[in-house]
Amino acid sequence: MARKLKGNALIAQSGGPTMVINETLVGAVLEGKQHPEIKGFYGSLHGIQGILNEEFIDLKRETPKSLEAVGRTPSSALGTVRKKPTESDCKKIFGILLKYNVRYFFYIGGNDSAEATHIINEEAKTVGYEFRCFHIPKTIDNDLLENDHTPGYGSAAKFVACAVMGDNLDNRALPGVKIDIVMGRHAGFLTAASALARRYPDDGPHLIYLPERPFSVQQFISDIERVYKKLGRCVVAASEGLADADGAAIATKFINEKDAYGNIQLSGTGALGDLLAQQVKANTSITRVRADTFGYLQRSFPALISDVDAREARKVGTIAVQQAISGDVDGSIAIRRKPGKAYQIAYERVPLQSVAKATKAMPANFINKAGNDVTQAFIDYAAPIVGELPPIGRLKGVKVAKIR
Amino acid sequence: MARKLKGNALIAQSGGPTMVINETLVGAVLEGKQHPEIKGFYGSLHGIQGILNEEFIDLKRETPKSLEAVGRTPSSALGTVRKKPTESDCKKIFGILLKYNVRYFFYIGGNDSAEATHIINEEAKTVGYEFRCFHIPKTIDNDLLENDHTPGYGSAAKFVACAVMGDNLDNRALPGVKIDIVMGRHAGFLTAASALARRYPDDGPHLIYLPERPFSVQQFISDIERVYKKLGRCVVAASEGLADADGAAIATKFINEKDAYGNIQLSGTGALGDLLAQQVKANTSITRVRADTFGYLQRSFPALISDVDAREARKVGTIAVQQAISGDVDGSIAIRRKPGKAYQIAYERVPLQSVAKATKAMPANFINKAGNDVTQAFIDYAAPIVGELPPIGRLKGVKVAKIR
Repeated sequence: MARKLKGNALIAQSGGPTMVINETLVGAVLEGKQHPEIKGFYGSLHGIQGILNEEFIDLKRETPKSLEAVGRTPSSALGTVRKKPTESDCKKIFGILLKYNVRYFFYIGGNDSAEATHIINEEAKTVGYEFRCFHIPKTIDNDLLENDHTPGYGSAAKFVACAVMGDNLDNRALPGVKIDIVMGRHAGFLTAASALARRYPDDGPHLIYLPERPFSVQQFISDIERVYKKLGRCVVAASEGLADADGAAIATKFINEKDAYGNIQLSGTGALGDLLAQQVKANTSITRVRADTFGYLQRSFPALISDVDAREARKVGTIAVQQAISGDVDGSIAIRRKPGKAYQIAYERVPLQSVAKATKAMPANFINKAGNDVTQAFIDYAAPIVGELPPIGRLKGVKVAKIR
Repeated sequence: MARKLKGNALIAQSGGPTMVINETLVGAVLEGKQHPEIKGFYGSLHGIQGILNEEFIDLKRETPKSLEAVGRTPSSALGTVRKKPTESDCKKIFGILLKYNVRYFFYIGGNDSAEATHIINEEAKTVGYEFRCFHIPKTIDNDLLENDHTPGYGSAAKFVACAVMGDNLDNRALPGVKIDIVMGRHAGFLTAASALARRYPDDGPHLIYLPERPFSVQQFISDIERVYKKLGRCVVAASEGLADADGAAIATKFINEKDAYGNIQLSGTGALGDLLAQQVKANTSITRVRADTFGYLQRSFPALISDVDAREARKVGTIAVQQAISGDVDGSIAIRRKPGKAYQIAYERVPLQSVAKATKAMPANFINKAGNDVTQAFIDYAAPIVGELPPIGRLKGVKVAKIR
C-alpha cells in the first residue's frame, strides 16, 4: 500500500457561477473530512485571486448543517473570479501552495481553470514537489471536452426550459412574436434546452438558433413569417452568441452599424434581443414583437435545481477527493454516459490537458438540417439531465356553435 | 326565497396573463357546475374579442382532471386581449350576450376590465334585462382599488424575490453593479417585492427605485457609489416605469436623447436596464456593470407559484359564482385583510365602479424617506402573500492566518 501524502488541501471556485457549484464544494469538503492525511481544508476566496492574495478560509470550521445549506444554495459560496492566470501567476500560485503546505489542490471550473490547474501541476512536477492536483468540472455552457455533460448545465437547462414553457403559454394567450435570448457564447446546449419546453405539437419554441450555425437575418425573418402564418404567433429561442457566416457576432455587428451603445458586452444586456425584434418589425407586417434576455437568472436562480444535476455535482467533488487520496495521481473528473436506454453515468479520471485545451460545441446530429431547431437525439440526450418539468394543462376547448 | 335566474354563463380573461389566473377560471367553472340554474358555461376566447367574434368554448365539456391541470398552469388558458372596449363595443357585446342567453357574466381582469364589465352591466339595466355581472380581480401590478392585494401578485412577487435572491448571490461571488428591471409601469409593488430576497444584512437589493418617486439619475449614481464603496458591490432593483420629476419615463427620455432604438415599448425590451448601466459606467469608475430585465417570466413562469396566491385566486372565482347565484346582485370580489398579527383575509363584494376608475400606488409608509428602498411595513405586508422562499446558506468563513 502506498504511503499516504499528508498536508493541507485547498479548494477554489472559478468562472461563472452555477446553481450547483456549491454541491461540488460541499462534496469535496465532506469527503476531505473523512481522511486524516488531509490536515487543514482551506477554501480560497474568489478563485486564484484569493490564492495570490492568500485569502483563505478554514472549511473544517464549517458545521455539516451549514455545509448542507450551502450545497443547496446557488452561486459560488467561496466567491469566484474571471481571471486567466499567466504563466508567472501560476508560478507565484505554486509558491504560495508550497508556503501553506498544500498537498491537495482542487479547482472547480471550466476549461480555463483546467489549464491553470495543469500549469500549476507541471510546476510541482518540475521541482519534485509531491502534489495531488485536480480540476473538477462545472459550466452551464456544457462545453467541456471528455464529458458527456457538465455539472451546472442540467439546472440552467431546467431554468431555460421552464422559462420558455411559461413564455410559450404567454405567447399563446397574447399572440405575437417573442424572442428569448439564452446564454452560451460558443456552444448552443443551453439554448437548445428550450426545446424541452414543448408539450403539444403547436408549442414553442418554434424556432431555435444556435451559435454552431451561421445566422442569417434573412432566413430568420422568413422562418418567423412562415411560423406566424401557420400559427398566428411565434416563439424563438436564440443564443446570445449568434454569429454570421464570417464569425462576426450578430449583437456586435448591429451595434457597430447603429453605434447606439458604444462598447457593450454580450451578457448583462438586452441589446441582441431588442435588435432582432427591430429586424422583425422592420421587415414584416407583424406588429406585436417582444424580446426577453434571460440573463444571469439562468445560472443563479434558486429553487429550480435539477435533482440529477445536484447529485452529480456533489459526486464529482466527492470523487475528486477520493481519487486524490488514492495515490500519486492528478487529473480532472469527467462524467461519461453508459450506453443503453436507461440513463446511467460513470465518473472517470482524465488527464488535465484533455479538458484544458479546446471546448466542444453541439454535435451535428443534435441540430436539424435547416439550422433552426434541434433533433430528437438532442431531446433524448438532455431530458434525463434536466429531469422532470412542471406539468402543463390545456383546455379541450369544444367550440360552442355560433347562433345565426 | 328569490327566484333563481336561469340561463347560460360566460367567462373571459383579460389583460396581461398571471401565473394563477387559471385558478380563478377553474374556481368559477367548478362552482358553476354545482348550480343547475347555470345551463351552459361558456368561455370566451381572447377576452372581449372572443365575445365580439362569438368564439366560445363549452367549459362543461372539460373534465375535472383537465380543469385541475389547467388551474396549475400559468397564463390565460382562454387566451386574453389588450383591448379597452369602446362604449359601442360594449353595446355590441351586450347584444351578443342577449343572443346567447347569457345571464351570468364573469370578467377576470384589472381595472379596465372592471370598467368594461360596468358598462355592459349598465346596458343590461337600461333595457331591463335580468343579469348577474361580475368582475373578478387579477393583476401582477397589485394596483386595484378596494383590494388589499390582487390574485397574481403573490406569484409574480415570488418570482421577483427568487430572481433577486439568486442575483444577489451571483453578484456576491463576482462583484460589480447589477441592475434588475422589474415590471410595473405605475405601481411599484412588484419591484418592491425584491426586498423579500434579503437574508443577511449585506444582501441585495441594496437599492430599490419605484415609479411612485421621481427618479433622479444623479441620486441613483451617488446611491450606487455609496453602496459600492461600503460593500464592493451593489444590486439594484428598478421599476420599468421609472419617471423623472416631470413624469417623463426614464426609458423614453434616454431613448429620445440617444435616438438609438426608434419607437420602443417599456416591456419586452432591455433598453432601460442597458441605459441605466451606461449611466453608471459613464459617471463612475466602476467597470463591471450589468443589467437584466426580468421581462415576461415574471408573470408566466411555471413551477414557482405562491400557494397563498393560488388558493386566493381559486377562491375569488368560486365566490364570484356563489354571489351571482345568490340573488339580484353584481359587483367585483375584493380581497380584504383582517386586522391582527396572523395573516387572514375576507372576500367582499364591492361595486363595479369602485375598482374601475383609478388604480392605486404604493402607500407612502411602504417607501423609505430617501426614495431608494422599502420599509419594514411593506415587508410585513408582502411576506405572507408571497409565502416561503428557498433557504439560502452561507459559509461562516473563518479566516486562515496568513503566513509571513
